[in-house]
Order: sequence, then structure tokens, then C-alpha cells
Amino acid sequence: MAQVRNKQVLLKNYVTGFPKESDMEIVEGSITLKVPEGSSDVVLPLTAFGVSKVVESGDPKYKKDDLVWGVTKWEEYSLVPSAKILFKIDHTDVPLSYYTGILGMPGMTAYGGFFELGCPKKGEKVFVSAASGAVGQLVGQFAKLTGCYVVGSAGSQEKVDILKNKLGFDEAFNYKEESNLDAALKRYFPEGIDIYFENVGGKTLDAVLLNMRSHGRIPVCGMISQYNLSQPEGVTNLANLIYKEIKMQGFIVSQFYPLYPKFLEFILPHIREGKIAYVEDIVEGLEGGPAALVSLFSGQNLGKKIVAIAPE
Amino acid sequence: MAQVRNKQVLLKNYVTGFPKESDMEIVEGSITLKVPEGSSDVVLPLTAFGVSKVVESGDPKYKKDDLVWGVTKWEEYSLVPSAKILFKIDHTDVPLSYYTGILGMPGMTAYGGFFELGCPKKGEKVFVSAASGAVGQLVGQFAKLTGCYVVGSAGSQEKVDILKNKLGFDEAFNYKEESNLDAALKRYFPEGIDIYFENVGGKTLDAVLLNMRSHGRIPVCGMISQYNLSQPEGVTNLANLIYKEIKMQGFIVSQFYPLYPKFLEFILPHIREGKIAYVEDIVEGLEGGPAALVSLFSGQNLGKKIVAIAPE
Repeated sequence: MAQVRNKQVLLKNYVTGFPKESDMEIVEGSITLKVPEGSSDVVLPLTAFGVSKVVESGDPKYKKDDLVWGVTKWEEYSLVPSAKILFKIDHTDVPLSYYTGILGMPGMTAYGGFFELGCPKKGEKVFVSAASGAVGQLVGQFAKLTGCYVVGSAGSQEKVDILKNKLGFDEAFNYKEESNLDAALKRYFPEGIDIYFENVGGKTLDAVLLNMRSHGRIPVCGMISQYNLSQPEGVTNLANLIYKEIKMQGFIVSQFYPLYPKFLEFILPHIREGKIAYVEDIVEGLEGGPAALVSLFSGQNLGKKIVAIAPE
Repeated sequence: MAQVRNKQVLLKNYVTGFPKESDMEIVEGSITLKVPEGSSDVVLPLTAFGVSKVVESGDPKYKKDDLVWGVTKWEEYSLVPSAKILFKIDHTDVPLSYYTGILGMPGMTAYGGFFELGCPKKGEKVFVSAASGAVGQLVGQFAKLTGCYVVGSAGSQEKVDILKNKLGFDEAFNYKEESNLDAALKRYFPEGIDIYFENVGGKTLDAVLLNMRSHGRIPVCGMISQYNLSQPEGVTNLANLIYKEIKMQGFIVSQFYPLYPKFLEFILPHIREGKIAYVEDIVEGLEGGPAALVSLFSGQNLGKKIVAIAPE
């Protein structure tokens, strides 16, 4: 019954507002690599979507050395209720990190939000905010595969370059350099926007509403600019929903999990043929976890942020 | 070729902000009751949905003495392009005024918005704002016919009484007497709201978003509290769309016109059997038109506001 060191990222306290590195600590605990009869959990490790290898299993659906992805804690070894495992990993000819991104939760988010709620048609005009992020970069590429015109916004010139040169967006702009977002959108969408894939909320949404076309769709995936604000920015242009008969629909990725097999069938060939790229921002070692989390809210990540706890 | 007096309500100028009575004037023109070869229209009469009797027709689909409803000008006699006529009136055992309300545009608005976009199920909880208005009073009654629990908000005790005692709402409240709309909604919807039929926007929408249930629907019919404001109120709680996977969908009634025959089949029996009531607020004479319009924005109307230009 091996007992091993188990490094963990813990929250010191309940956090309000944007998380700071000082809200988290790295501790060295230990864990017995044996499924216990009962379990008690008195600390508060952060959770995330991760890829893990099964060490021991009490659930007959999983066996030792199976690779799985789903919700895990930020630690080297986790006792995971099997309901938190989402899928067993069957295809290992692609990087395992992909199962935290393009083949994991962000991939399903982009796929379900864009295709199921966005209902894209060839030739339509698509705008994606936070476009170089884990989800946005895929939405843009799915839009191109569908024959749409797609423009992305991001927060640095480096991200804009990647959107245009590596990810195939038709256009991209740095929203921090646009004093008037409405004017920027009118420049890139003189005929208006059919689908806005919403990741940021606030002022961007307000400007988008002025530029939507009749019968437009807004899948609402996130509003990262508004999270952790004690008072969110007010959105003032919602009456456009009426005049333009817009459908705005929020969603959580779990509603699309039943589509996962269909999604893999769609995306794996594109990955293998190099028709879809995926930008990852990998931090080596659990010690880098707190800074990685904080970077998401300051826009410093480039692509899907991943903390590699152990080598493949 | 009879030439007759034709009283009209004209706009003196283009109006910004809330309309005032002084923005409009009643003029006595004249009109030749003969369809001209061409037509020119240099004045700006207001338009509205009205019921008219055909005096003469150049379109073979309509003949003298047909009753029709559709877009007409605010005047005694109108030269109407036949495309502006929406439907011929076939059922005259109900008041003709109903074709401006329960059997006209507001009826179709309530029907399409509630059933097609709201997708109500028996037992669901429904909230309607501007609930005693032309559309709201029908939405509430449709909700009751569907087996829903329905609460309406309105702006006076008299309206609240009508909602509860005449229109069959389960509950109703005067929003002007609630200092905290969120608390009011929690009182009437301890388990949350499944469908919010949106007529007002602004602060009401913000409070509703805090009280929606998972997978709720918000058909967006109007935002009357926000029209004509130079700066609309900001809505701050939109992130709830994500967490609660809410569908918020704006619409214009015309998308539902193809359903009109089906709608009549549904609603005429209910009217004839007295199972649906309809509150009208009729002003006699075109001279009362400007004040009637202004009253809509101050909340002084009770039910569907109608200007009767000529007796049936």
C-alpha cells in the first residue's frame, strides 16, 4: 500500500474578485495509492479539467493505466469519483494535452456553441471575441471550415498575428487599440454580423449589438471581462434584440457531451490532416499553477493554458 | 368622383425622445375617393394598425365594403397600398375593435412570442411585465390556458386588480411600489421563473435575470421603459444567461403572420365561450389620437389603447 508525496495547489481562503497568486499555496501532502473504503476531504484543492492515468480503480469501467479526461484536482495524485471522469481516451496518436483543449472541454464548447446554437451557414459573417483563447481559436477555424467570413478580437499584437497567420482568421484586431469598438466592427463588418460567439461581455457585447444583422445568433459562452467585477458593466443596446430578431443563448458545455463521439469523428481527421491548428500555452510543473490561473484574467495567456503536472 | 373632408393626425417634425401632444397636429385635408393612377405622398401622417372598410379597390383581392386590418394612417380616409393590408376580416360576430388587439397584431405577438419562442410546458412559472397591456394581458391568459403559474407586473393598483380579478393571473404586483424588484420576484417565484415575457427592459430585466431558472426562456417582445431614452439603462446581470443556459430571443410579430389562420382557430372559440377576456381602452375620435399615443409612454393606458375614428 504505497504512500507517496502528493503536491497540491490549495486555496488559502474563499476568494472574491480576481484571484491573486497569494490566494493559493503549494503544499506537499501525501496520499495512499489505494482506493479507500470511505473518503473524507477536508481541504480545498482547486479543480480543473485534466488528463489523468488510472493508478487503481474501484469502478469496473476503468482499469489501471487507462487514460481519462474530466474534472480533477490540482495535485499529483487524485482520488476521483468516477462520475467526474467524462471520457476514456481512445486515441493517443495526438498529444495527450489535446484532451484538455481541442479534444476536451474547450473543443466541445466551441463545437456545440458554434454549430448547435450558432447554426452557421456558408457565407455568413462571424465575429469571435477572446479569439486566441482555448475556445475562440477553434470557433474561428470551424467558421472557416463552414465557409464563413470570420474576424477575431484579442488583446495583443502577438495574438492578432497568430489569428491571421496561423489560425486562418480573415481579419483580427487588438481591441485595446480601438478607442471605438463600434467603429472597428463597422470597419470589419460593413454588412453586419450574423453570428457573434460571445466570450467577453460588457462593452464588446454592447458594440456588437449595434452591428448584428437581422436574425443574428449570439451563443453566449462566457463573459470573462465581467467575472469577478463587484459591479458588472451595464449593457445598454439590448433593444437591438427586438428590431433585429436576435437569438442570444447561454450554455454550459455539459449539454453537448452526448455529441462527443460525433465531435471526435468530425475533428480527428482535421487534426491528423493538419487542417486545424491548436495553440497551447503549457506551464511545466504544478508550482506554476497559481500564476497560470491569474494570467487568464489579465489576458497574458496565449491559447489554451495548460499546467503539466507530470510528463506523458 | 367624390371629394370628402379627411381629418388627419400629422407630425409637425421628426420627433426624438418621448412624443408630446404638441409634436402632433390635427389637420383637415380632403381626399378624392377614387384610386388614382399614381400617388404622391408629401405629408407625414402617423401610421398604426387599424381596421378599415374598403371604399374602392384597385387590387382584385379586395372589393368595396370588405373589412380589412393592417397598417393604415391616422386619418379618416386612407389611400393604402394593398401590401399594407394584412388580412381580410371574415369573422364579424366579435367586436371589430378586436382586430386591432386580441385578433390583430397584439394577439399574434402574444401567441407567437409565448408559444413559439417561450415553448411553455404545463406547471411552468411565467412572469409577464406590462401585464395589463395589449399583449401582456393575453400572454397571461395563454399561460393559464397552458396550465402555468403566472404573475404579472403593472404600474397601478387598478391594473393589478384587473390582472388578478378579471384576467385570471395567479398574482400581480405594482412595480412602482416595490423598492427591490429582486425581492419582489423572489416572493412570487421562490423556485424561480421558467419564462419571462419581456415587454419593458431595463431594471426589470436585470432583476428577472437573477431569478430565472435553468434553461429558462425570455421572448423579447419590447423594452418600453427604454425607448426614447437618450441613454438606456445598463443591464448588468447578463452572465446569468450562461450559468442558467437561458435563451433570450427578440422578435417582430411579422414572422408569425403565416400562423394567423391557426391562431384564429385557437382563439375564436375561447373568445366566443368567454374563456378569454380582453381589456380595451377606447378613445372616441381622431382628435384624441395624440393624447392616446402619449399616454402609452406614461403608463396611463389600461389595456389595448384604441382610437375609434368612425363608428362601426
